[in-house]
Amino acid sequence: MSSSVGPWLEQAAEALEPHLVEVLDRQGGAPKVLREAMRHALLGGGKRLRPALVLACCRWVGGREEDALPGALAVELVHGYSLVHDDLPCMDDDDLRRGRPTVHKAFGEGLAVLAGDALLTLAFEVLARGPAPAERKVAAAAELARAAGAEGMVGGQVMDLEAEGKDCGIEEVEAIHRGKTAALLAASCRIGGLLGGGARERVEVLGRYGEALGLAFQIVDDCLDETSDPRTLGKAAGKDRDHGKATWPGAVGLEAARERAGSLAREAARWIGDRTGVEPEGRILQDLALFVVERNR
Amino acid sequence: MSSSVGPWLEQAAEALEPHLVEVLDRQGGAPKVLREAMRHALLGGGKRLRPALVLACCRWVGGREEDALPGALAVELVHGYSLVHDDLPCMDDDDLRRGRPTVHKAFGEGLAVLAGDALLTLAFEVLARGPAPAERKVAAAAELARAAGAEGMVGGQVMDLEAEGKDCGIEEVEAIHRGKTAALLAASCRIGGLLGGGARERVEVLGRYGEALGLAFQIVDDCLDETSDPRTLGKAAGKDRDHGKATWPGAVGLEAARERAGSLAREAARWIGDRTGVEPEGRILQDLALFVVERNR
Repeated sequence: MSSSVGPWLEQAAEALEPHLVEVLDRQGGAPKVLREAMRHALLGGGKRLRPALVLACCRWVGGREEDALPGALAVELVHGYSLVHDDLPCMDDDDLRRGRPTVHKAFGEGLAVLAGDALLTLAFEVLARGPAPAERKVAAAAELARAAGAEGMVGGQVMDLEAEGKDCGIEEVEAIHRGKTAALLAASCRIGGLLGGGARERVEVLGRYGEALGLAFQIVDDCLDETSDPRTLGKAAGKDRDHGKATWPGAVGLEAARERAGSLAREAARWIGDRTGVEPEGRILQDLALFVVERNR
Repeated sequence: MSSSVGPWLEQAAEALEPHLVEVLDRQGGAPKVLREAMRHALLGGGKRLRPALVLACCRWVGGREEDALPGALAVELVHGYSLVHDDLPCMDDDDLRRGRPTVHKAFGEGLAVLAGDALLTLAFEVLARGPAPAERKVAAAAELARAAGAEGMVGGQVMDLEAEGKDCGIEEVEAIHRGKTAALLAASCRIGGLLGGGARERVEVLGRYGEALGLAFQIVDDCLDETSDPRTLGKAAGKDRDHGKATWPGAVGLEAARERAGSLAREAARWIGDRTGVEPEGRILQDLALFVVERNR
């Protein structure tokens, strides 16, 4: 059913890569070691799911890809920054990311904090300098900031740290996931719709779609952490449990967690429309939602 | 000569305070401890020089204060975030700021990193949601991001860390100061001009003014660090020397550093115009430049 979306996503990730490189190369006035740390953080692989969503959602509302591209780069920059800071010793304390040393392991803690800061800041610069009309860019910037900030990703990470070692119910786990993962995935979808000039109702639909997809994504992440081979995962497995993290399988067990992820993915797909008769731009979004729960890394 | 600008600046800082509180209070969906850490970082006093510059520069180009206010809040949010991250143990490792414990001392390192991240992100949200025309807001956001990012503040902080314990010449010290201090002060002036709808040439003049003022400001900071009573300064004195920091007095001696600051302040004032015949909006800017080198904290 969603068998073609894996290759589609790989192709989208490949097409994005030179643009990510270009954005980093344009920071020529930055100290060399800082640019290296930023490249290490951003160019070491990654599924590029968020930028793919921005572009696919822009197409779904009938927008132009060039208007959405800065949004695609911006959400990946924000995602990259969040991984660098989350991996710090004072946070999740991870040594390995995508099969390579984390930024603080390779460059030291001070540079890891600063490289993350620079990536986050760069996201807003890239967005502001894009070719879309100013009104759309301002709306996209507000969306990105809200999703990334204290009420979104940063808030989710704070709740995550606070919940460590505690016995968490499903509501608490879901609140953490909404902040730390679903907020940016939903924002990616809305930003694609906004930069593409989509009507308000269509942007709302994209937000609902992205929220359900985002929750499904994080549940699957939690499940993979429990069951995967670290070589496939590109990072240490079973770390959530070791750290006493609040996770879906921790709260309801693996099987119920997987069922919940599947039902959220189907909910996401339904926001886009019926399976029969959906236009190709919508089908890609539906397939992406299903792909999220079928992936193995 | 600049005797009235001290009280003027105090009044401007007082007028800004309720707006800063309101911006933080609007983050109602954020975890309580995160909001407390953000308040601790932002509301513990501070000269509020950057927002005062934004507002004064907006007035100088004939703009409306309400258009510039979000820019004023944004630069103070960025300044606040940078202090929180700079104080971290993996950076300058400071326990005291404005006479109170630093954020990581009061809330722990993880929360300090996250509160800084949230303040930086919030700056762009506040800017994006302001009442100025979208074109101006986009220009101001690009300006803020460039000044705060890898080629500006973050780059300056990286150079600062790299220079620790090394024997630095004046060029190196000045490059560090341009990034870590002058970039945001110059951007504050340009943002005020941009949000106020100033013509390109006037915004350029404001940038030159802010750059000279910013360099003067940091030289005076370095001098105060060497000579002040810690109670006046609100932070530990002599720390730069203890840390082997690259400073102006370290490179050329106290007296030459003070002379250089004075000459930069006069250069800044000259960018605004002759002393005689300058309009009141210009005189405030000139007085601010001179105030920067006469202050004792």
